[in-house]
Amino acid sequence: MSIAIISPGRNPKVWIDALKKHQPDLDIQVYPDINRPNEVEMALLWQHPPGYLSNFPNLKLISSLGAGVDHILSDPAVPESMPIVRIVDEKLTWSMTNYVVTGVLNFHRQITRYQADQKRKVWDMSNPEIPVKVGVMGVGALGGDVLDKLHYMGFPVFGLGFTEKRGFPYPYFSRDRMGDFLSEINVLICLLPLTPETEGILNLELFKKCNPGTYLINVARGKHLIEEDLIPALDKGYLSGAMLDVYRKEPLPEEHPFWGESRILCTPHIASVTNPEAASPQIIENFRRLKSNLDLLNIVDREKGY
Amino acid sequence: MSIAIISPGRNPKVWIDALKKHQPDLDIQVYPDINRPNEVEMALLWQHPPGYLSNFPNLKLISSLGAGVDHILSDPAVPESMPIVRIVDEKLTWSMTNYVVTGVLNFHRQITRYQADQKRKVWDMSNPEIPVKVGVMGVGALGGDVLDKLHYMGFPVFGLGFTEKRGFPYPYFSRDRMGDFLSEINVLICLLPLTPETEGILNLELFKKCNPGTYLINVARGKHLIEEDLIPALDKGYLSGAMLDVYRKEPLPEEHPFWGESRILCTPHIASVTNPEAASPQIIENFRRLKSNLDLLNIVDREKGY
Repeated sequence: MSIAIISPGRNPKVWIDALKKHQPDLDIQVYPDINRPNEVEMALLWQHPPGYLSNFPNLKLISSLGAGVDHILSDPAVPESMPIVRIVDEKLTWSMTNYVVTGVLNFHRQITRYQADQKRKVWDMSNPEIPVKVGVMGVGALGGDVLDKLHYMGFPVFGLGFTEKRGFPYPYFSRDRMGDFLSEINVLICLLPLTPETEGILNLELFKKCNPGTYLINVARGKHLIEEDLIPALDKGYLSGAMLDVYRKEPLPEEHPFWGESRILCTPHIASVTNPEAASPQIIENFRRLKSNLDLLNIVDREKGY
Repeated sequence: MSIAIISPGRNPKVWIDALKKHQPDLDIQVYPDINRPNEVEMALLWQHPPGYLSNFPNLKLISSLGAGVDHILSDPAVPESMPIVRIVDEKLTWSMTNYVVTGVLNFHRQITRYQADQKRKVWDMSNPEIPVKVGVMGVGALGGDVLDKLHYMGFPVFGLGFTEKRGFPYPYFSRDRMGDFLSEINVLICLLPLTPETEGILNLELFKKCNPGTYLINVARGKHLIEEDLIPALDKGYLSGAMLDVYRKEPLPEEHPFWGESRILCTPHIASVTNPEAASPQIIENFRRLKSNLDLLNIVDREKGY
């Protein structure tokens, strides 16, 4: 009974070390050197080659190596009955929230304005704060933590999600009330899972409904944003700026216009990076539960897509 | 019975409007047009001309127009027996904390690194976070709020103060343990009041005791920092950067080297600006208490200097 790590183009050593540290006798096979495919019962995936899983006749469980599972669900060769689990890691949440709060505060306290003033030796004390109201699209573990932290810091916060929520502690809008949600806020944060419903949700039609000068933070997936629409939305004043961590194509191609756009802060998909050390215990625990036929942790609902 | 506003070089209208809104019949005289000095019993001061208070034989109470009182205590003509009060305003605290947290997060998430990478079209995912431990010098209302917010966000925090503290909720160091305090942290925040004891406390000797690459945030008073020592401390690596809101001379003179220093983010004394609307009720309440011989709010301890 063996675990396969299938994560092309990334160094699997940190994962092997972390898993073995927690369970030294674990039988791990690593792509592309998987010689005993019949023995693989659990596959750890990050952007695996589509169709590749058909090599494993005895596969019983798939685990994402991160919080997202869009890279798994987009492969039609993944059997429909196969359970899929993902990483839920407090450290992931912590980093993601810090990144988002950094973006909110830099907009609120106008750090790029003061950087520009400093370069020109301008001492301008007027209007030092932009009042902000923050909207978070996607109110799962990540979005919920962002809302809690910003609320604790004293900012008005609003949530939008794709399911009904009762007893949600902040003003909550379901997807059919997108216009109402956008009219409340001037900072828009995307923390949605990537599903067919959410792909391309950040587009010019949506930006038109925003309060003028809204600030965008996309920290979910590149495909949430219609990238061609962003600079026009800035030019028209629907948005005043953006902070992006994810892109349709990564690394961001050299000719991409975002590189040279001063109104967009681009970071290289570093908002939140799965920590193998922190994630290994839940992978091993799920492997144990699989063998014992127990309920799995952090199981993905395929209908919802996360 | 009259209140005098003495705040040279600033427009007093916002203060008059805010005070009159709360008490329309208030008798307010404004520097330099104070024609009935005998009637002045309370003076609202911001950087008044030294010695000027000797014009008011019936003065009974001085109020700062901000949180700081160093501009009052530094005038030897202020009678020793005269009570001094200051503004304690939640909005002041809120803004100050947001400014400080912005600085901490920008250091932790290396925003200036990613800005530079973006300019050069560099996609570098390595080491996306600098682990931070935050030390706050000055643990009054302002410092306490900074500690609470950063603690809630999950950062290790440490406080240093000039008085003994019992039951303080975070690790606390008194001034004689400055070296121990500095050895714990890599972000140093100055929120001390300006007193003869604290003037010049941010100097090369102190920076030498810091963990290499410590990040400095000074949001208290310009005179806390020996400005000549900052760039040498950066050059030697004692510090890796700084965010400054206050300077020995304000506005920062055009020839000042801080303007052109990329390792220092300079803002024009905007971290926290007293809001006349929010501060007026406590000024009026103190005026009422003065007339009724009741205990004053937010009274300054001259021994401590704040």
